[in-house]
Amino acid sequence: MEIIVGGITSPKGYKATGAAVGIKKNGNKDLALIASEIPAIAAGVFTTNVVKAAPVIWDEKLLHMNNTVEGIVVNSGNANACTGKHGSDHVEMIAQTFAQCIGAKAKQILVASTGVIGIPLPIKKVLDGIKNTVHSLDSSIADGTLAAESIMTTDTIKKEIAVKFELSGKTVTMGAMAKGSGMIHPNMATLLSFITTDAKISQYLLDKALKETVKDSYNMISVDRDTSTNDTAIILANGLADNPQIDSENEDYKIFKNALAYINTELAKSMAKDGEGATKFITVNLKGAKTKEAARKLARSVISSNLTKAAIFGADANWGRVLCAMGYSGVDFDTTKVKISFSNELGEVTVAEDGKFIVFNETLASKILSEKDIFINIEIKEGEFEATAWGCDLTYDYVKINGDYRS
Amino acid sequence: MEIIVGGITSPKGYKATGAAVGIKKNGNKDLALIASEIPAIAAGVFTTNVVKAAPVIWDEKLLHMNNTVEGIVVNSGNANACTGKHGSDHVEMIAQTFAQCIGAKAKQILVASTGVIGIPLPIKKVLDGIKNTVHSLDSSIADGTLAAESIMTTDTIKKEIAVKFELSGKTVTMGAMAKGSGMIHPNMATLLSFITTDAKISQYLLDKALKETVKDSYNMISVDRDTSTNDTAIILANGLADNPQIDSENEDYKIFKNALAYINTELAKSMAKDGEGATKFITVNLKGAKTKEAARKLARSVISSNLTKAAIFGADANWGRVLCAMGYSGVDFDTTKVKISFSNELGEVTVAEDGKFIVFNETLASKILSEKDIFINIEIKEGEFEATAWGCDLTYDYVKINGDYRS
Repeated sequence: MEIIVGGITSPKGYKATGAAVGIKKNGNKDLALIASEIPAIAAGVFTTNVVKAAPVIWDEKLLHMNNTVEGIVVNSGNANACTGKHGSDHVEMIAQTFAQCIGAKAKQILVASTGVIGIPLPIKKVLDGIKNTVHSLDSSIADGTLAAESIMTTDTIKKEIAVKFELSGKTVTMGAMAKGSGMIHPNMATLLSFITTDAKISQYLLDKALKETVKDSYNMISVDRDTSTNDTAIILANGLADNPQIDSENEDYKIFKNALAYINTELAKSMAKDGEGATKFITVNLKGAKTKEAARKLARSVISSNLTKAAIFGADANWGRVLCAMGYSGVDFDTTKVKISFSNELGEVTVAEDGKFIVFNETLASKILSEKDIFINIEIKEGEFEATAWGCDLTYDYVKINGDYRS
Repeated sequence: MEIIVGGITSPKGYKATGAAVGIKKNGNKDLALIASEIPAIAAGVFTTNVVKAAPVIWDEKLLHMNNTVEGIVVNSGNANACTGKHGSDHVEMIAQTFAQCIGAKAKQILVASTGVIGIPLPIKKVLDGIKNTVHSLDSSIADGTLAAESIMTTDTIKKEIAVKFELSGKTVTMGAMAKGSGMIHPNMATLLSFITTDAKISQYLLDKALKETVKDSYNMISVDRDTSTNDTAIILANGLADNPQIDSENEDYKIFKNALAYINTELAKSMAKDGEGATKFITVNLKGAKTKEAARKLARSVISSNLTKAAIFGADANWGRVLCAMGYSGVDFDTTKVKISFSNELGEVTVAEDGKFIVFNETLASKILSEKDIFINIEIKEGEFEATAWGCDLTYDYVKINGDYRS
């Protein structure tokens, strides 16, 4: 697998673009369009929140019918959530408008939104925006980037990535764009991720590969524990790479799934790094759990703890908060076997062993925790399973950003 | 029921005191002692965290054996959690020392600690402190207050309360002290609460009354979602009021339980108000749930949402975050029936109806949310059950306090 410069337009047969159409008050770009030259198969994973935004309900229905997909419309600046019948009507109008523009059917268009909840979409601006922007659709890398920029909300950097790899002698490309930043929490929280590939793969295996890789990527990051109404991860596969179709969990499937796992993990990490107000990137490595799910739960509980995150912000080696967060994770474990260390390029300091304090080098610990990149390493010595979770510190700026998000 | 000036020394037969014995680096008071003149029956509720501090393990064991209790030792400044065998040895030494001083047995002494996790207790200071302080034990209100002050950590105000009421013609008194502030979350998070009463009641009903009233008081507050290793709520009843013993759920039991509910609720509210860094007190009233537990879960999910709490800090009527938090509570409900309003002494503004936006008076909403006391009122129109949860806003100071708690 090779990492290449690019994004959603890197695989064969995809065009994209982005523009400012007036949804955001500040005049920033707020509409992204993606089109596949030929109908693509698709798979998606969506928010588990009972309150689902109108586009999420639309997409879930479409994918449930196994429709092929020809395009995706994404707006930022407004989540189209808690908007009642208006909301679902607006989604349908968006799908119809884009479908007409590119010669597809409305039920082949997926829709996604992110932004403030509970305010109706300025639908005329969106529909006019689609009509005025559609002519810019292009397969250049720059147009993929335009789309990636158009889905940002409080993100400070655009998130795109592309890789290529060989499947039975054919070169296959996979590209993606995402947005994260606020409301990021395990179980897909205002996180939008769009992946394109020219691989030829069965619908069943595309769906399986996406669902499995989401578990160890987007579902292992936390910025603030709030699971949003709009989370969406979608992958399109149009088959233009002309590889022998992946129909079983063979070697090609493994290569494909590894590439997808890489893309999802890198995007997830970039979201955690760019968490609202973040000054530090935290990686929690949990080893020695009895089951994979126990490992995930423990790692997630630590990365989600406000007290742990505030301690890291303050460069305070307060490992008791780490153990405490493990204790309320819902996983039963022997607390007297736990080992905890903090590490990064400056070194590693073990701060607890056998579930209790040990004398450690406070100066080095404080230096490590003052860096931008921090690893919390935990061993619970009960089994063979491990998991990694990513997050960021809790800072004054998180509070500031979320204290007046609507204004 | 009458609210009276006082605390844990208000009921007949209880003495208390508090002092600075050097556990806290800043020289503040850090040791509280409580003694009952005659053996009292006792009941307790403790943290659900898998990681339990040594004193919690001790107390659970003692109460499990249905021992009578003659005293309680509480220290602040050190949680005696994650301290291994040292930790349990220290608890036993504390119980033995105080027992010797007051002529009781070690197994009649309850112990509680709060403060930093993972650092051994300065045990000599604690034991010397007990010996040097025990002569100050007194039944005056002032000595109850000394004890209440000695259990504070980041609390900014001491928390004590007392009430009296009649049971079959006899005057019964109940008093309490508590500490809260950080790590406060549903399921008893660094929260210590000690209640004394001179009521005569059976062990079974004392236990039942405590457990039931905890559900709608301490378990309905949230400051930061972190469930601590040390949470403890203990009630002692020594029977000195000489009322006919409460042996069934009769009228006297109801009066007793109401008084206990009042005390626990008031203490819980004072903890939420005094949450670390709090500038505003938030009450979430949830009505119309199918079950009591669903009502509690929904109310707690809203009061626990960082995004909602940051919005309140910023006086932003971002009700979408309220509905979003309900959506990930784990409770299934019809989102299209939800009504949400914000209110306080300035008035009430309905901000969402039928689960969606309505046009509302933004100016009044913003004024209401700029006050110190804010009610979030939610109706879901599915049943008859309701619950109330209390919390505070998420502020810069929360981050500051928790960024360097150990230092």
